[in-house]
Amino acid sequence: MNIIILGGDGYLGWPVGIYFASQGYSVTLVDNFTRRKMCIEHACPPLFDSCSASERVAKWSSVTAFPIDFIEGDVTDYKFITQLVREKAPDTVIHFAEQPSAPYSMRGYEEARFTISNNILGTLTLAHAVKEIDETIHIVKLGTMGEYGTPNIDIEEGFITITHKGREETFLYPREAGSLYHTSKIQDTDLLYFYVRMYGLRVTDLMQGPVYGFDTPEMCGLNEFRTFLNYDSIFGTVFNRFLAQAVSGNPLTIYGGGGQVRGYLNLLDTIQCISLAVKHPSSVGEMRILNQFTEQFSVRELASLVQEAAQELGIKVTSQNLPNPRIEKEDHYYAPSNSSFLDLGLKPHYLTKDRISEMLEQILPMAQNINPDHFSPNVRWN
Amino acid sequence: MNIIILGGDGYLGWPVGIYFASQGYSVTLVDNFTRRKMCIEHACPPLFDSCSASERVAKWSSVTAFPIDFIEGDVTDYKFITQLVREKAPDTVIHFAEQPSAPYSMRGYEEARFTISNNILGTLTLAHAVKEIDETIHIVKLGTMGEYGTPNIDIEEGFITITHKGREETFLYPREAGSLYHTSKIQDTDLLYFYVRMYGLRVTDLMQGPVYGFDTPEMCGLNEFRTFLNYDSIFGTVFNRFLAQAVSGNPLTIYGGGGQVRGYLNLLDTIQCISLAVKHPSSVGEMRILNQFTEQFSVRELASLVQEAAQELGIKVTSQNLPNPRIEKEDHYYAPSNSSFLDLGLKPHYLTKDRISEMLEQILPMAQNINPDHFSPNVRWN
Repeated sequence: MNIIILGGDGYLGWPVGIYFASQGYSVTLVDNFTRRKMCIEHACPPLFDSCSASERVAKWSSVTAFPIDFIEGDVTDYKFITQLVREKAPDTVIHFAEQPSAPYSMRGYEEARFTISNNILGTLTLAHAVKEIDETIHIVKLGTMGEYGTPNIDIEEGFITITHKGREETFLYPREAGSLYHTSKIQDTDLLYFYVRMYGLRVTDLMQGPVYGFDTPEMCGLNEFRTFLNYDSIFGTVFNRFLAQAVSGNPLTIYGGGGQVRGYLNLLDTIQCISLAVKHPSSVGEMRILNQFTEQFSVRELASLVQEAAQELGIKVTSQNLPNPRIEKEDHYYAPSNSSFLDLGLKPHYLTKDRISEMLEQILPMAQNINPDHFSPNVRWN
Repeated sequence: MNIIILGGDGYLGWPVGIYFASQGYSVTLVDNFTRRKMCIEHACPPLFDSCSASERVAKWSSVTAFPIDFIEGDVTDYKFITQLVREKAPDTVIHFAEQPSAPYSMRGYEEARFTISNNILGTLTLAHAVKEIDETIHIVKLGTMGEYGTPNIDIEEGFITITHKGREETFLYPREAGSLYHTSKIQDTDLLYFYVRMYGLRVTDLMQGPVYGFDTPEMCGLNEFRTFLNYDSIFGTVFNRFLAQAVSGNPLTIYGGGGQVRGYLNLLDTIQCISLAVKHPSSVGEMRILNQFTEQFSVRELASLVQEAAQELGIKVTSQNLPNPRIEKEDHYYAPSNSSFLDLGLKPHYLTKDRISEMLEQILPMAQNINPDHFSPNVRWN
């Protein structure tokens, strides 16, 4: 089985890549280092920032029995992508190659344009190349639960059947996002669904919640195999930021009242979900949309969990409510469905106090490298 | 009242521009001649192709009492757009500056990319500039009825309230388009709705059906003031093509069985609708979506109407069913609402036999310029 991972140098691309390699898949990672460049440009280095992508891949390929290919390239470059897909003849292309930060997309016009342009044109380019070369290649695309927003009705998995004036129709579940980044993912979904309807592509679009964690069994506890752990306000997800704040003796920063509820998952479960999606592909001509999270928390609840786990390690952690830099509801109904992955066999790693303690202990040695200046939100929605 | 019309050299931009100028508005037309260049590139000249944009504007400004400003520029150029909006301080910006052809968008990768990129980045650039400069400027944006597709339930105007598992929420009406061009318009709607929700922009998004016609009172019957009349398979809308086929002695080409129903309107009613939207703007912070068509026909019915009207003029016209180059339903439910413009005061010009005869007589003198090679569809969806 051949797998191409676009965005293979990223927070998810790398751990997913070494997982599939360890499972005996032939893996090609592709990246143009946009994420690394943005972290440098915005002076927010990740916590484990050991070596370059090619060094990491070379070391991996030399010390394990599962070599990985790495190719530098841009997903929005049609010539590059068609050549890649022709040469590698993949069974699956996993598409992570997007600008992944909501605050980044909301900084100003240039960032907004880059996010919209990079994300939509990358998805268009991949879909078009697959249609031209082999429409049976399974595209696994990372979307986000944020596409749905926080509607007042239950969130189904991708589609909804509407009864209206006595007639019935099934539609893409209506989407209403809270940032331009999230909007670009809605627009990706529009595009992929179009290519599926017109050309019979086979697509799995994953509506993923915020991920936390940084360690997987394939990393063997080696820092140089660790994935980017961003704890800053631009690229860090909330739980990872809380971990960094806890071990560095800084208060957990809660935006607004902290009532915002989202569906979260452990990095290990992202890998499980992607693996299940790859092993059980959608049918040719099917747009399969799966909600990818394991449990729901409010930001307040997440903060309390981290505080309790830290306390057991003898670390005293406070929390602080900041004016919310985002425009979002802080108290809202939230009932998303997530049964599909459980039906496929997902065994969730729930966020227990023990798991949090373990993560805190793993990053404690890095505490001195944490720069608390990166915690404060510096992008306001309005 | 200051109005900027983006895409002011186009099929709709020009007649709308001279209409507002004649009404005493201060009008600035903006265009980068993409449409003219595409017609040259694809060798499908419009029927009335008298002079350049600047010649047409200069002639208009010299022979009427209502001078018009014309500025060459690209809507996706943020520096240009911000400068323009600052200088002109418009009350309203009418945004027509999009790649408008479904077949063009389906020709190949380059055309697909240009359509998606030009249309979405143009809308983003305008919305962002208005947010930065003055969010009370009314944006009137041309969408398309094609965003909705042909669902099995009634099509409301822009939004729908869904009851699901005992709870209720109002969403953008779910959209499902039949070409990449139409998909780009869905993505425009996603973007505009985001800017309205986040920044309180005031937007009117017009879901317009296919337009027919080419003559307006402001043109005084002068060919040099006429708008582009494309009759080719790429830029020509179906009814305009039928008119050209009828007067040039060619069969009316019906795609597939011709059961496709759409909501149509006369160019005069497009102008009326835009005028009503401008005179009754949406509120600050309101995303108003209006369905813009006056009556529904199947393609078969349109063909019959043209045949009957031609017969009365003594022109014998046949019709011919071609294999449908598009992927679309040929027999489907279609019940879109269009009451909002009627409530605002729209007085429709319905498609009577007399109106068709009048149009046929107006283009009869041009019959010898019509090239029948341009009628056959040369872009297939699959």
